[in-house]
Amino acid sequence: MNERHFQHFYPDHLAHCYGCGRLNQHGHQIKSYWDGDESICLFEPQPQYISIPGYVYGGMLASLIDCHGTGTAAAAGYRAENRSMDTEPALRYLTASLHVDYLKPTPLGVTLEVRGKVRDVSGRKVVVQEWITAGGEVTVRGEVVAVQVPDSLVLDLLARTGQ
Amino acid sequence: MNERHFQHFYPDHLAHCYGCGRLNQHGHQIKSYWDGDESICLFEPQPQYISIPGYVYGGMLASLIDCHGTGTAAAAGYRAENRSMDTEPALRYLTASLHVDYLKPTPLGVTLEVRGKVRDVSGRKVVVQEWITAGGEVTVRGEVVAVQVPDSLVLDLLARTGQ
Repeated sequence: MNERHFQHFYPDHLAHCYGCGRLNQHGHQIKSYWDGDESICLFEPQPQYISIPGYVYGGMLASLIDCHGTGTAAAAGYRAENRSMDTEPALRYLTASLHVDYLKPTPLGVTLEVRGKVRDVSGRKVVVQEWITAGGEVTVRGEVVAVQVPDSLVLDLLARTGQ
Repeated sequence: MNERHFQHFYPDHLAHCYGCGRLNQHGHQIKSYWDGDESICLFEPQPQYISIPGYVYGGMLASLIDCHGTGTAAAAGYRAENRSMDTEPALRYLTASLHVDYLKPTPLGVTLEVRGKVRDVSGRKVVVQEWITAGGEVTVRGEVVAVQVPDSLVLDLLARTGQ
């Protein structure tokens, strides 16, 4: 994992996400990498992200699945074209749907390992299957459907809110 | 909506959730009520919960679907037995699975309306369908499968982490 994380390459206007934006000082700032055919993100939630005391809040786990999934989709898009994430044309992905199965309670106070595997790429749609391991046990499984959108659409959304 | 919100009735050991726990000072502290056959939660995300500037972060929206869904499941359990949420025996629900469809970007800076409708109750399992409206438009649809668990299981989980 010596290469730069996927989120490093997001342009500034896509780097404010609470889950994965390097420019959101309040957020989680997750970092995702390739590990062979799988993607990986290591993350230890802060202690306030409680479901019941001692266990991680489901919304936090959903966020990890979401942002690691879109990051993996973006990286997979560039990889499919055999080029680096800092080359043009830029590929932008948004989450179309998110599914999370909570298999067992996820303990707080340990580093979580989030892994992703690209299951399908069809047209602009990428399906990423994911799982979260805590203390050697898989506690969560999930799936993200990410859709590639033109940068012009993102810029149009920003313009509508005056950003 | 003059009655007390569902989360008011959660016992202290289930009131620390980052999404809906009244005792989590860092969290969202969402409040859900009945509105006829539907449940409703009004919530305005704080400005740091960004996806792209001006729009709400998907993990925040997933959290609202999750916690409003389990709250609705719990309230539905008591309602099915025609008794108040502060009566015994207590009914406790955890999220088994969460699905979220992001239909369009959800604007920041407006009050979101999260609504739920109980679709199925079979044994200990409750399925809640939900949707989020922002500025008059439905931007998110979701579903939670919540499972009723014995309070003894929750107390056992707490004991394992020394809580």
